[in-house]
Amino acid sequence: MKIAVLPGDGIGPEIVDEAVRVLKVLDLPLEMEFAAVGGAAYEASGHPLPAATLKLAQDADAVLFGAVGDWKYDKLDRPLRPEQAILGLRKELGLFANFRPAVCYPELVHASSLKPELVAGLDILIIRELTGDIYFGQPRGRRTAVDGHFPGSEEAFDTMRYSRPEIERIAHVAFQAARKRGKRVTSVDKANVLETFQFWKDVMIEVGAQYPDVELDHMYVDNAAMQLVKAPKRFDVVVTGNMFGDILSDAAAMLTGSIGMLPSASLDKNNKGLYEPSHGSAPDIAGKGIANPLATILSAAMMLKFSLNQPEAATRIESAVAAVLAQGLRTPDIWSEGTQKVGTREMGDAVVAAI
Amino acid sequence: MKIAVLPGDGIGPEIVDEAVRVLKVLDLPLEMEFAAVGGAAYEASGHPLPAATLKLAQDADAVLFGAVGDWKYDKLDRPLRPEQAILGLRKELGLFANFRPAVCYPELVHASSLKPELVAGLDILIIRELTGDIYFGQPRGRRTAVDGHFPGSEEAFDTMRYSRPEIERIAHVAFQAARKRGKRVTSVDKANVLETFQFWKDVMIEVGAQYPDVELDHMYVDNAAMQLVKAPKRFDVVVTGNMFGDILSDAAAMLTGSIGMLPSASLDKNNKGLYEPSHGSAPDIAGKGIANPLATILSAAMMLKFSLNQPEAATRIESAVAAVLAQGLRTPDIWSEGTQKVGTREMGDAVVAAI
Ligand SMILES: CC(C)[C@H](C(=O)O)[C@@H](O)C(=O)O
Ligand SMILES: CC(C)[C@H](C(=O)O)[C@@H](O)C(=O)O
Repeated sequence: MKIAVLPGDGIGPEIVDEAVRVLKVLDLPLEMEFAAVGGAAYEASGHPLPAATLKLAQDADAVLFGAVGDWKYDKLDRPLRPEQAILGLRKELGLFANFRPAVCYPELVHASSLKPELVAGLDILIIRELTGDIYFGQPRGRRTAVDGHFPGSEEAFDTMRYSRPEIERIAHVAFQAARKRGKRVTSVDKANVLETFQFWKDVMIEVGAQYPDVELDHMYVDNAAMQLVKAPKRFDVVVTGNMFGDILSDAAAMLTGSIGMLPSASLDKNNKGLYEPSHGSAPDIAGKGIANPLATILSAAMMLKFSLNQPEAATRIESAVAAVLAQGLRTPDIWSEGTQKVGTREMGDAVVAAI
Repeated sequence: MKIAVLPGDGIGPEIVDEAVRVLKVLDLPLEMEFAAVGGAAYEASGHPLPAATLKLAQDADAVLFGAVGDWKYDKLDRPLRPEQAILGLRKELGLFANFRPAVCYPELVHASSLKPELVAGLDILIIRELTGDIYFGQPRGRRTAVDGHFPGSEEAFDTMRYSRPEIERIAHVAFQAARKRGKRVTSVDKANVLETFQFWKDVMIEVGAQYPDVELDHMYVDNAAMQLVKAPKRFDVVVTGNMFGDILSDAAAMLTGSIGMLPSASLDKNNKGLYEPSHGSAPDIAGKGIANPLATILSAAMMLKFSLNQPEAATRIESAVAAVLAQGLRTPDIWSEGTQKVGTREMGDAVVAAI
């Protein structure tokens, strides 16, 4: 099994290192090949997603991804910025289904900004469509307005769009995921304002009819944002478009208090996937050896389960992570009184030892 | 001074009634004229924003608005649904600047879903652009896709757009508001993905240069959603587009624990405005006499201050609301152990008495 390993920028290399060590100790026939991505790739070769990196990812069975981005690239033209690498990978690899679990670890209930009773036991799954919507819709650009409030003035524009098959396939992913969980899907839209999301809602209802065992409800995105902060446990599976999913999944991850622990998977139609932590590249703490590697280690576990058909190995990793938490080990981001503060490497060591 | 009073649906009529009683007791030369809007107007005359209602609003110096919407209108064609009334009023009256304060009342610190220390003293102002963006951008509709992932299939689409003068005017509103507060503006965008919001950011920086006394920073919308749930007090004034503002302002309002208390104003370029509570029409509790009228009463105070140049009268209302809270009176939405539960009418009575 071939894995493309793309550490990226900021804390990416440190946390990916630990995930790779964990994978190695499992003694599986894994072939891991590294390549530069993001700002690191731009520095090395002038492009955030070099052709060789893309090819490696295309030829691999799965991609393990760290994080990309740093303030210092903010002044670059957009096509050269680190984020373009992740957008390019999603698009070129057809990774349309993004799984973002928002889980509150029992040990971290008090790390949440929400009151403990609102997050204890929280376990929701946000499924975000990842290759459509206003992220990729054409046309887009700048032009002179011909209508609107100020005809004749300079304007910028983007196109939001979803086609029926795009909505259908993400709907099936959501309903099938819900079958393995609480059997409830909440589709988040803005059907009261947007044509795109009225269509989204219509197609969700159609596909939902094929899953009579799964309960489907609909929520406007503004209300969904409110319910997430008020009573997140009311959700099971949340499915939404690329733009709304970007916002809601980050809010949900943050309010678990466990964002340093949350993995994510982005899958194509054959369950080939890219796996990355839910958090970002955190350039402010890069190189200090204090970043939490657990989200990346758990992303590697997701990879074994979803793309490489190694559910047992995945479970070994997950149990090891549970064990180190139970031992009281914490990186600074999740540390609290009475637990033992450790660095990135020590945390990785502990997981390896627990396996 | 002429006020158009539009009670609308659900709890709208009950809460607007109390605000009207409060306005009357101030003994100002106010002429209040009522008209139907939303579902109520649809029932009465077949359209959510009848021409007569629009004309009344256009001719008035300010509009006091309750709330619109009810599940029972969900099946209507979009142009006939209650929400179209509020979108139509914003557009026809040119109400481009939406002020949404997210304030945590000291008495309600424990009603927030966030930990008390994160919300005690919270006072942020979200300024949402209200007549542009993907809410109104043309073209929009359904068609057969000619490109994208599935050419030839049915698709729906919308257009996000902002012109330079639209961004400039909301930027000036935000910087001027910040001058009267903490002198900090956070502009929320998605410049890393969207052309529209790269332009937004560029123009914000240009306008910001005219306000050297106000600090400007920029945040991506996903990060803004995270920071709102993690550390909302870091913000002073937040300025953003129509779509992102819809989501963020609702999340912010909800996490104060005070959503039943939060007013809002939507202003045109001459400070004529529409005033409405931040919460919705709550059809589930309509007619029960338990809705919280304070957000609407405080919206009336905002109206006196922003549109009718009666700051003293506004302060009298605000002090009266503070007084009834201090007396321990609470509608069910903000009730907690040790306070006195009252209904809509009694709450209105208490404010009237305190004035
Ligand atoms: C880096 C950025 C382009 C990206 C997105 O908006 O999708 C990120 O926020 C994410 O959620 O993975
Ligand atoms: C009712 C709806 C069209 C409206 C909006 O999306 O603007 C509402 O959510 C609001 O925020 O006032």
